[in-house]
Amino acid sequence: MCSWEVSKEDREIYLNLVYAKNFPKGQKIFSSETECRGLVLIEYGALRAYIISPNGKEINLFVLKTGDYCILSASCMLKNISFEVNLEFIETSSVFILPSKAFNEISNKYKKAKQFHLDLLSSRLSNVVDSLSSLAFMSLSDRVMAFLLNSIQNKGTNSLYITHEEIANSLGSAREAISRVLKELQKQGKISQTRGIIEILEAQSV
Amino acid sequence: MCSWEVSKEDREIYLNLVYAKNFPKGQKIFSSETECRGLVLIEYGALRAYIISPNGKEINLFVLKTGDYCILSASCMLKNISFEVNLEFIETSSVFILPSKAFNEISNKYKKAKQFHLDLLSSRLSNVVDSLSSLAFMSLSDRVMAFLLNSIQNKGTNSLYITHEEIANSLGSAREAISRVLKELQKQGKISQTRGIIEILEAQSV
Repeated sequence: MCSWEVSKEDREIYLNLVYAKNFPKGQKIFSSETECRGLVLIEYGALRAYIISPNGKEINLFVLKTGDYCILSASCMLKNISFEVNLEFIETSSVFILPSKAFNEISNKYKKAKQFHLDLLSSRLSNVVDSLSSLAFMSLSDRVMAFLLNSIQNKGTNSLYITHEEIANSLGSAREAISRVLKELQKQGKISQTRGIIEILEAQSV
Repeated sequence: MCSWEVSKEDREIYLNLVYAKNFPKGQKIFSSETECRGLVLIEYGALRAYIISPNGKEINLFVLKTGDYCILSASCMLKNISFEVNLEFIETSSVFILPSKAFNEISNKYKKAKQFHLDLLSSRLSNVVDSLSSLAFMSLSDRVMAFLLNSIQNKGTNSLYITHEEIANSLGSAREAISRVLKELQKQGKISQTRGIIEILEAQSV
C-alpha cells in the first residue's frame, strides 16, 4: 500500500480492513455480486481463473501463484466485465484480502492505486491472450507439456499430484484426449506416470 | 472529453491535438513503440485486433465497429501488455485519434479519464475471454456462422464481400477447413455463395 502513496492516516484505516485467509486445495470462490471478495494477494499457493461452457466444459483463463494479485476476485468493481469468472485454489493457499469496497475507495482516492488497478488488468489481459494463443496455435501435446512445466515451476520438485481430469479441465479438453497425450509423452520419455503422480523428466531440456 | 470532467482550458488544448484520419479496407496499423498512435475512436468502419503465431497463423482477439474505442492502438501506454497486437481495418474507415502522449497526460491528470481507460480495458478483457470461450467451446461450423452474423450486424444487408482466407485468418483456422464448413452451411440452406459474395439466409432465425 506504500507504493500507492496512501496517506499515513488512510493506510492505518485500510490496513485494518485487510485480512488473511487460508483455503484448502480444491476450494472455489466466485466473483459474482454476492461473493465479490476484493483484491487478493497470494501469500503462498496457487489459484486458477476459469470459465465454464453451458454444458460444463471448463478452460483456464490463467493461473496465479505466490506473490500474484488476483483482481477478478473483485470483478464486481469492474463494470465492463461481462463474463462469469470462476476461481479455484489448486494448491493449499494463504492469501491476504483487501475487501472490494475498501479497494474501490483507495482506487478512487489515489491515482497510483488506480494505476495499479489498470496495470493489473493489463497483465490479466496479456494472460488471457496467451491462453487464446496457445489454444489457437499449439498442439494439444505441446499444451499439456507446457501446462506440466508451468505447474512445477518454482516448486523444487518434478513430481505433480494431478489427475488427467484436472488437466483436461484446465485446458478445455476431454479426459480421454489428455490420457492419450500423456501416454504418448510417456512413450517419448518426457514424463513418467505412477499412482496418480506425474513426473516430468525433461524439465531442463524443454 | 466532457465526461472526463476536463477543465475548459485543457479541453481546448487536447481537442486541438485530436485528428481525423481515413483508412482503406485492408490497411494495417500497429501498436509497437514506433507506431503507437493513441486512443482511436471509430467514427465509421471496422477494425480487427489479432495476433499472429510464429508460423504466420492469425486469430482475432476482437472486432471493433462504429462508435467503439480502440485502446490497444495505444498499448505502448500499458506497461504490462506483453503480446504484440496487430490492427487491421476490415472496412473503409474514418477515425478520430487522440495521440498517446496526450491521452496519457489526461489519464494521469483526471481520475475520470483514468477510469474510462480502466473500463475500456475491462471491455477488451471481456472481448478476448469471449473469443477464448468460442474457440474452446464451439464447433468450427458454429463459430463461422457466428462470425458471419456478427459481420452483417447493423449493416442493413445480408451480403458479405469476404474471402474464405479472410474468415480463416479471423478464426485461427485453415482456408480448407473454412471452405468445407461453408459448403456444409450452404447445403443446410443457411447461406448461399456466389462470385465472392456470401449471403446469410438465416440471419433472423439464428
